[in-house]
Amino acid sequence: MYSPTIQKLIDLFSKFPTVGPRVASRFVFYLMGKKEEEVNELLAAISSLKRNVKLCSFCFNPFEGESELCPICSDPRRDKSLLCIISNETDLSAIEKTKKYNGLYFILGGTVSALKKADIEKLRTKELAEKIKTHPEIKEIILAINPTTEGEATALYLERLLKPFTCGEPGRTKKITRLGRGLPIGGELEYADEETLGSALKGRR
Amino acid sequence: MYSPTIQKLIDLFSKFPTVGPRVASRFVFYLMGKKEEEVNELLAAISSLKRNVKLCSFCFNPFEGESELCPICSDPRRDKSLLCIISNETDLSAIEKTKKYNGLYFILGGTVSALKKADIEKLRTKELAEKIKTHPEIKEIILAINPTTEGEATALYLERLLKPFTCGEPGRTKKITRLGRGLPIGGELEYADEETLGSALKGRR
Amino acid sequence: MYSPTIQKLIDLFSKFPTVGPRVASRFVFYLMGKKEEEVNELLAAISSLKRNVKLCSFCFNPFEGESELCPICSDPRRDKSLLCIISNETDLSAIEKTKKYNGLYFILGGTVSALKKADIEKLRTKELAEKIKTHPEIKEIILAINPTTEGEATALYLERLLKPFTCGEPGRTKKITRLGRGLPIGGELEYADEETLGSALKGRR
Amino acid sequence: MYSPTIQKLIDLFSKFPTVGPRVASRFVFYLMGKKEEEVNELLAAISSLKRNVKLCSFCFNPFEGESELCPICSDPRRDKSLLCIISNETDLSAIEKTKKYNGLYFILGGTVSALKKADIEKLRTKELAEKIKTHPEIKEIILAINPTTEGEATALYLERLLKPFTCGEPGRTKKITRLGRGLPIGGELEYADEETLGSALKGRR
Repeated sequence: MYSPTIQKLIDLFSKFPTVGPRVASRFVFYLMGKKEEEVNELLAAISSLKRNVKLCSFCFNPFEGESELCPICSDPRRDKSLLCIISNETDLSAIEKTKKYNGLYFILGGTVSALKKADIEKLRTKELAEKIKTHPEIKEIILAINPTTEGEATALYLERLLKPFTCGEPGRTKKITRLGRGLPIGGELEYADEETLGSALKGRR
Repeated sequence: MYSPTIQKLIDLFSKFPTVGPRVASRFVFYLMGKKEEEVNELLAAISSLKRNVKLCSFCFNPFEGESELCPICSDPRRDKSLLCIISNETDLSAIEKTKKYNGLYFILGGTVSALKKADIEKLRTKELAEKIKTHPEIKEIILAINPTTEGEATALYLERLLKPFTCGEPGRTKKITRLGRGLPIGGELEYADEETLGSALKGRR
Repeated sequence: MYSPTIQKLIDLFSKFPTVGPRVASRFVFYLMGKKEEEVNELLAAISSLKRNVKLCSFCFNPFEGESELCPICSDPRRDKSLLCIISNETDLSAIEKTKKYNGLYFILGGTVSALKKADIEKLRTKELAEKIKTHPEIKEIILAINPTTEGEATALYLERLLKPFTCGEPGRTKKITRLGRGLPIGGELEYADEETLGSALKGRR
Repeated sequence: MYSPTIQKLIDLFSKFPTVGPRVASRFVFYLMGKKEEEVNELLAAISSLKRNVKLCSFCFNPFEGESELCPICSDPRRDKSLLCIISNETDLSAIEKTKKYNGLYFILGGTVSALKKADIEKLRTKELAEKIKTHPEIKEIILAINPTTEGEATALYLERLLKPFTCGEPGRTKKITRLGRGLPIGGELEYADEETLGSALKGRR
């Protein structure tokens, strides 16, 4: 239906997360209507992403700068004894916005559905184990993974992976924790599942 | 449009919770299609509700029987030091289903939007204060009210109302708690509000 | 969990259309909170439904009165050459509200999913065929059945059933029509399926 | 929160239709994870959009090629007496997919909410009037505008604009039509608004 150049760009935009062919075609027509300077601005921004942004060698958070470490990892005020494992960058940013966490992060790079080895190997599990081994100052590992089916499978996998670190000599043992379950703001007891409501009761304060 | 008898019944069903005129008219046509015995069974069940069911004199939970107290309140195995305040009967039943709570309940009878005196007077706040005063065995009062805007206003009102009980002589003081906030099963960090995610972090275990 | 009387009534309300156990329990607690007069008013209205309301002998529309025929069927100003077949009473009332239809109705009593004989026999298809045979004044039969999968199956079944009436001697033949397909108010071309949009184009005016 | 290069790209993606900051940030992290060749492929596709694609001088449909006219406008088999006015390219493509329309198009370039002059001037209304004046072969103008509030305002505006063409000498007059209203596939009588259902009845066939 569309001309080759348009169709090619629709196909590329369709691979973007959350985008289907319909939205992709609206992106293309949106760009068609933009002035040349504006399109060039977008092209420049995409190009410089690959050129300027690198991944933190500790937490894999993307950042810009000369350092090997991202601003969070190199901030001396952050608590190095806490390591929060999240699936991806947007979860890191969600936690930072709460301003309630002062430790470090580790971006796992995704979640897995139960037991698929190929999927697990795409995650940074080896890097994670290595990091924990070589950083004895880490005392608590927070598995801040979504309490979805996929997230639960991933968290179970990580718990197994990290088990050796939880039972060592006194003082060298690490604690593994998970986010508290409960009712979110706007939630209703009547519609909460039993496990969530049970956790909300247990976690009352 | 409808004949008077049908319209009258549509109007009455429209007052049922969650029911609008459209659903009410479907109820009426549903009853029209039922056999006489089936309609009589419904009539008998509604009649016996008012005749047989009474409210527990302690927690206001509806029940049947000779006793003044409902099966929960008269169960010697329940922990009398815990009092869980809920808005209504369905919330009580939601908590019972979790099998994680072993104390007593108090059904408040609703929630209020902030500061409307007429609304507050519809709640059983006097009865609640009276109950807590005359039951020194109560050590913890759990405000298990929905974390919605209305529920929060109600909980704040209750906290003020119950404040005198929280600062007494040592050993006679009562603790007031609220359900833990956090991510529900199936929830995602990315879409959680900051307060919920902050609580989930704080309540990690 | 609930006392027998309450549970019994929850079970009965759960059979109402669109009602599940959760909403049914809210109905029961709503009734628990009503004064005796109000509950009696509901009981009286339900009782009189069966006693006072009967089905029209022509169109099966429920009505009150001495006549055999409902107010629509006995209204001399309605066009007796038009017969509109609808699934149920709420569809009749939806069409009446448009004030754009001046013919008669026939309430089929439901829809069928394809080819289940037991389901078809619950519909008033025999009565429909009989009515059309004995009312030669009917010139057009409008199948005003929902354009859903179930509705389409039902309409196809009716078209086959009524085929004999569409090919008779000139002047005695009946026309069978269906509601026009198109974009509803608020609809968008971009999200319309191809058949709907094709019909909207064909039916342009 | 994010580094300048990332934030800049999030800001640019946030201006894309349907995209907010959250999805924009997922786009950026998606690109971060792509190989350099893949990002270059995207850059090339965006660049060639501006270079290779032009707008048809008749209907404003984007296309590639030497011609002044797009493949639809230059197709001798298309019926030149029919002109279908649509808001944008995606509506054109929705109608083409139905394979039920064989005339020409005119892309208006948007819709207007009632009476805002600045908005109207962004539409190609002058070009439309000019085209109709200079193409006497056009006999019917189909306003295929969404039946939404905005779309209705736009269609009313166009009807007023095109009125002079509808009352001319016999044989030179043009007909103005609109898409048929009705129930879409999957729609239900019970939930249809009165105007839609009224049109569906009127447009029965």
